[in-house]
Amino acid sequence: MSQLTDLSPPPRILMGPGPSDVDPRVLRALSAPLLGHLDPAFLEIMNEVMELLRHVFRTGNRVTFPVSGTGSAGMETVLVNLLEPGDRAVVGVNGLFGQRMADIAGRCGAEVIVVEAAWGDVIAPEAVEEALERSGGPVKLVAVVHAETSTGALQPIEPLAEVAHRAGALLVVDCVTSLGGCEVAVDAWDVDAAYSGTQKCLSCPPGLAPVTLNRRAEEILRARRHPVQSWYLDLTMITSYWGQERFYHHTAPISMMYALREALRLILEEGLDNRLRRHRLASAALVAGLEAMGLEAHVPVARRLPTLTAVKIPAGADDAGTRRALLREFGIEIGGGLGPLKGKIWRIGTMGYSCQRKNVFLLLTALESVLSRQGLPVGPGAGPAAAAVAYAAGGEA
Amino acid sequence: MSQLTDLSPPPRILMGPGPSDVDPRVLRALSAPLLGHLDPAFLEIMNEVMELLRHVFRTGNRVTFPVSGTGSAGMETVLVNLLEPGDRAVVGVNGLFGQRMADIAGRCGAEVIVVEAAWGDVIAPEAVEEALERSGGPVKLVAVVHAETSTGALQPIEPLAEVAHRAGALLVVDCVTSLGGCEVAVDAWDVDAAYSGTQKCLSCPPGLAPVTLNRRAEEILRARRHPVQSWYLDLTMITSYWGQERFYHHTAPISMMYALREALRLILEEGLDNRLRRHRLASAALVAGLEAMGLEAHVPVARRLPTLTAVKIPAGADDAGTRRALLREFGIEIGGGLGPLKGKIWRIGTMGYSCQRKNVFLLLTALESVLSRQGLPVGPGAGPAAAAVAYAAGGEA
Repeated sequence: MSQLTDLSPPPRILMGPGPSDVDPRVLRALSAPLLGHLDPAFLEIMNEVMELLRHVFRTGNRVTFPVSGTGSAGMETVLVNLLEPGDRAVVGVNGLFGQRMADIAGRCGAEVIVVEAAWGDVIAPEAVEEALERSGGPVKLVAVVHAETSTGALQPIEPLAEVAHRAGALLVVDCVTSLGGCEVAVDAWDVDAAYSGTQKCLSCPPGLAPVTLNRRAEEILRARRHPVQSWYLDLTMITSYWGQERFYHHTAPISMMYALREALRLILEEGLDNRLRRHRLASAALVAGLEAMGLEAHVPVARRLPTLTAVKIPAGADDAGTRRALLREFGIEIGGGLGPLKGKIWRIGTMGYSCQRKNVFLLLTALESVLSRQGLPVGPGAGPAAAAVAYAAGGEA
Repeated sequence: MSQLTDLSPPPRILMGPGPSDVDPRVLRALSAPLLGHLDPAFLEIMNEVMELLRHVFRTGNRVTFPVSGTGSAGMETVLVNLLEPGDRAVVGVNGLFGQRMADIAGRCGAEVIVVEAAWGDVIAPEAVEEALERSGGPVKLVAVVHAETSTGALQPIEPLAEVAHRAGALLVVDCVTSLGGCEVAVDAWDVDAAYSGTQKCLSCPPGLAPVTLNRRAEEILRARRHPVQSWYLDLTMITSYWGQERFYHHTAPISMMYALREALRLILEEGLDNRLRRHRLASAALVAGLEAMGLEAHVPVARRLPTLTAVKIPAGADDAGTRRALLREFGIEIGGGLGPLKGKIWRIGTMGYSCQRKNVFLLLTALESVLSRQGLPVGPGAGPAAAAVAYAAGGEA
């Protein structure tokens, strides 16, 4: 084959559903020379990453570390380790990632009881309670998505923890699009197992999936009757590499671990609370701007994510054409809708390093420009002006 | 928690069983700003990576791409997709990675028929033939390790392909420590499925697992009766992201893909045959040097890997102390033995960017220095001198 040119990715502003932009400091960390996965200096880095993840998850859980795969590998890790054939699982499905959890739980041989809600709604504790009651036997776990990336909805977790625990079930929470961008309080909320991905609000490249399991979940691992169906994601084996034993399991993704350490260190420097405030402010300003342009958010404010805004595509607008123009003319990536929301919403991420006022302003200006060219009645300047007002007001509506 | 220092990994020369050192050009590629996983510019990079991998695997296989995990995820991907509960699999076990294949095949619900050989030996085609005959029914696949990282043995593949195909079974080959360092000829050898890792002879950081499947293996995927037990590694779903459909499955590890592209581009520039010759030369010189010091290779020359040399730990030498001294005083990492070879061998990698004459010379000098301090009778200078002679002779014994 012919020689290839130098790698030269065009500059982008990543405001889709992830990955988000990565801080230059994280990119620099990625390029540090490698250590072996059993080098004492690397083991030290692993310890630091675990401590930093506990801080961001707000947990003291011993088992808190990144799995060597993307966010979906985190989902699979948690489900495949906690579920055995014949177990019952109640899964909340109000978007693509709930569907994915139900799919994976089924592949574990579990009997899956789905609690559905519309895409954009959240799962009602009463509906989960009812599912637990009519399950016909003990339920091993309840699983829900905290931040549904496919819809922009934020699921309240505490009431579900209560309902699940009352029935003797664990609560598993998908925090892929919330960790580092929304409040996630694993211990205070009494979440038994949670997972995330690095490429959303942590603003690290995709490739690692932070997971955390509490003592109750660890107990389930110890009590298993069958081997975990995945060798690669077998937590009992992996944790003896991450724990005191340092028993070799598989070669850890060294460079990605450097990057995650730096991304988490940036969160520590900014302060987690400050960082969450930055996300709330940006999304409030973004929505103010979109509304000033006559657009409408897909999710009501009470359950709207501060990290990903789903906005209805206005009648007459060209879905793919608008996204293509934003990418080509401005280097801005936003996402389209998935499943029943395909062609109906755009998904605009304000996550991590992408979550900056200048990006919100530019996106609104660019979107106005593209939509007005399609003959849509958007007043030039209205969006950014409204966003500026929201920013000035502090955004804490 | 307290603020952390800047990331500053101590400089290393990685001559263990992997990861290997990474070319600075690959480290630079890692630090390029991110693209979205559905960005047309990233899809182009994916196409290039697939083409480059076909070149290195020497295959025309349509399904040739990197799985989003380390080498062991590649192993699991191939087995979990080709095997269904109740299938029979013949697995060659002559080291740790053969054991791992047997373990994973068992977790797939397959009936695993193990063909054993001593750690350091290879699997005899006659033994596989016999296992196929006494299997009691059709066998879905035969699986072997091409380059056993735990022993340093190189498995001849062609005779096994013939034996497997005669019995109507597929041949699956683990190429983790061979791809890019030893001859791997997927099409010419008629291998049905193979996988590798990026962190060995490709000299890219760990985190991706190149896999390749031929038409016969693809046919098995289409004919499956049960869903693949792993959602994350379900090839039918993943290949519709890597294929024409570009259907979203999970977020690809963008930065790692940049790195792999650059690592493969370096192979193209060097020339695959030149690269393989470089590995043969370095390992021949290394062994000449070790023998001149009175040490002995664990594996006879006829089946010895050119990428990883297992050398017997001489009587009276301190296993862990020697490795620790090499690391602390010279920054050189070598590996210890595993399983039955623990305390009996050292494993010295000459892989990819680590496979350089200067590293071979330094390692021999350093090892002489450390061993002579332990009172072992190694003549100073003997090792490097012998290596220099081997290098001068061209190493193609």
